[in-house]
Amino acid sequence: MEGFGTFFQTGDWKGEKHVPVIHAPEKVTAGEVFELKMSIGDAVGHPNTFEHYISWFKLMYHPEGAKFPIELASFDFAAHGESDIFTEPTGLTSVKLQKSGTIYALSYCNIHGLWMNSQKIEVV
Amino acid sequence: MEGFGTFFQTGDWKGEKHVPVIHAPEKVTAGEVFELKMSIGDAVGHPNTFEHYISWFKLMYHPEGAKFPIELASFDFAAHGESDIFTEPTGLTSVKLQKSGTIYALSYCNIHGLWMNSQKIEVV
Amino acid sequence: MEGFGTFFQTGDWKGEKHVPVIHAPEKVTAGEVFELKMSIGDAVGHPNTFEHYISWFKLMYHPEGAKFPIELASFDFAAHGESDIFTEPTGLTSVKLQKSGTIYALSYCNIHGLWMNSQKIEVV
Amino acid sequence: MEGFGTFFQTGDWKGEKHVPVIHAPEKVTAGEVFELKMSIGDAVGHPNTFEHYISWFKLMYHPEGAKFPIELASFDFAAHGESDIFTEPTGLTSVKLQKSGTIYALSYCNIHGLWMNSQKIEVV
Ligand SMILES: [Fe+3]
Ligand SMILES: [Fe+3]
Ligand SMILES: [Fe+3]
Ligand SMILES: [Fe+3]
Repeated sequence: MEGFGTFFQTGDWKGEKHVPVIHAPEKVTAGEVFELKMSIGDAVGHPNTFEHYISWFKLMYHPEGAKFPIELASFDFAAHGESDIFTEPTGLTSVKLQKSGTIYALSYCNIHGLWMNSQKIEVV
Repeated sequence: MEGFGTFFQTGDWKGEKHVPVIHAPEKVTAGEVFELKMSIGDAVGHPNTFEHYISWFKLMYHPEGAKFPIELASFDFAAHGESDIFTEPTGLTSVKLQKSGTIYALSYCNIHGLWMNSQKIEVV
Repeated sequence: MEGFGTFFQTGDWKGEKHVPVIHAPEKVTAGEVFELKMSIGDAVGHPNTFEHYISWFKLMYHPEGAKFPIELASFDFAAHGESDIFTEPTGLTSVKLQKSGTIYALSYCNIHGLWMNSQKIEVV
Repeated sequence: MEGFGTFFQTGDWKGEKHVPVIHAPEKVTAGEVFELKMSIGDAVGHPNTFEHYISWFKLMYHPEGAKFPIELASFDFAAHGESDIFTEPTGLTSVKLQKSGTIYALSYCNIHGLWMNSQKIEVV
């Protein structure tokens, strides 16, 4: 069986337009709701046409020392030119954590596959 | 065949905790990206437990005079207590419009079904 | 506020290519798992290109006399020509019911909007 | 940055109840629609309760020699006891391929994280 995990590409979002950007505080208070945002194209825009677009984002969280990551949210971007309407790759939700860990931001371009980024967050 | 549309409940979000709140400008410029947010519980909080939670949001757009609505985005809120992690019902994305119309915000509570709200937006 | 429910179009799937077809038994045993399938294009094919495709299905269930419908499953069809790969609008899952009611099959064409069909099912 | 790919667990579905089972022909004809099914629990059942369930499946395809995998479909299983209704982890769709490659079946248990399986398919 071949590994699937190797398909997740990453890099520096300032130079590679597919790499998700995570907008999150470095430190939050346990049990307090905060907003967690991810986006693509902050430095270099990604195409958004019928033929080529960012299709979805997923936000996952891995508490330090935990065995499994937990899914926080999924965002599907649906309009890519229908009736001249465009959804751009920005996704935000709000979450409540109890333990420090790592946020994983995943995205899928319908042509260029799976991408990821991560950021540690301290919960105090 | 019975109608499905009658299942979408609505009301005043200040009194009914299931009604989505739309956070959008009243007027935007054609072709300019703007942020579109929806949330639940701004006035009265909704439960968020393994057994009872807001599961997803959808944002749709109906350009004035168009025959069909266009889907903008879907948001799935996945964590409702796993490893003490909670995703709250907040969803934001960014969109680009060319024609005035109506934003529809749909949501689904796993116990209390389908809810909606709408807001007109002027595109100039 | 305008109603959203009126956007769900329906008709006879033998003549209108957007109407979902429900493949379900008329009668099932309470608590027994059975397969529930929906499809589009059984009689008249629907286009499947980058520009025009069936994007998703949802299956909902409304137990007789219940106040709210319950979501069973969502299906997203993602490939519409990328690397010459196509996902066709067929979705199947398996479910377990305890009470008679109505199955609702919803679908979304990225150009022609929201469609539905329904079928009663007897649980004995 | 930590790698995300290492979170995908796998194994033998006959012994480990989280490993997806792929039901696909070994050989298909280029351009012909065929059904592709995945399931969990064929040998050992997985719990399906409010607190612990299989939340979603994704089917991806990697054509031989291609740089990126293409998403075929996503399945979300929504009902885990609401009104005594249960969606079980079975997902099927239909696809059309032009090149031999590898099918990847991904799944997410809300407690035990991400799992995968894969199967080669010959397109003639
Ligand atoms: Fe791309
Ligand atoms: Fe509720
Ligand atoms: Fe259509
Ligand atoms: Fe599990």
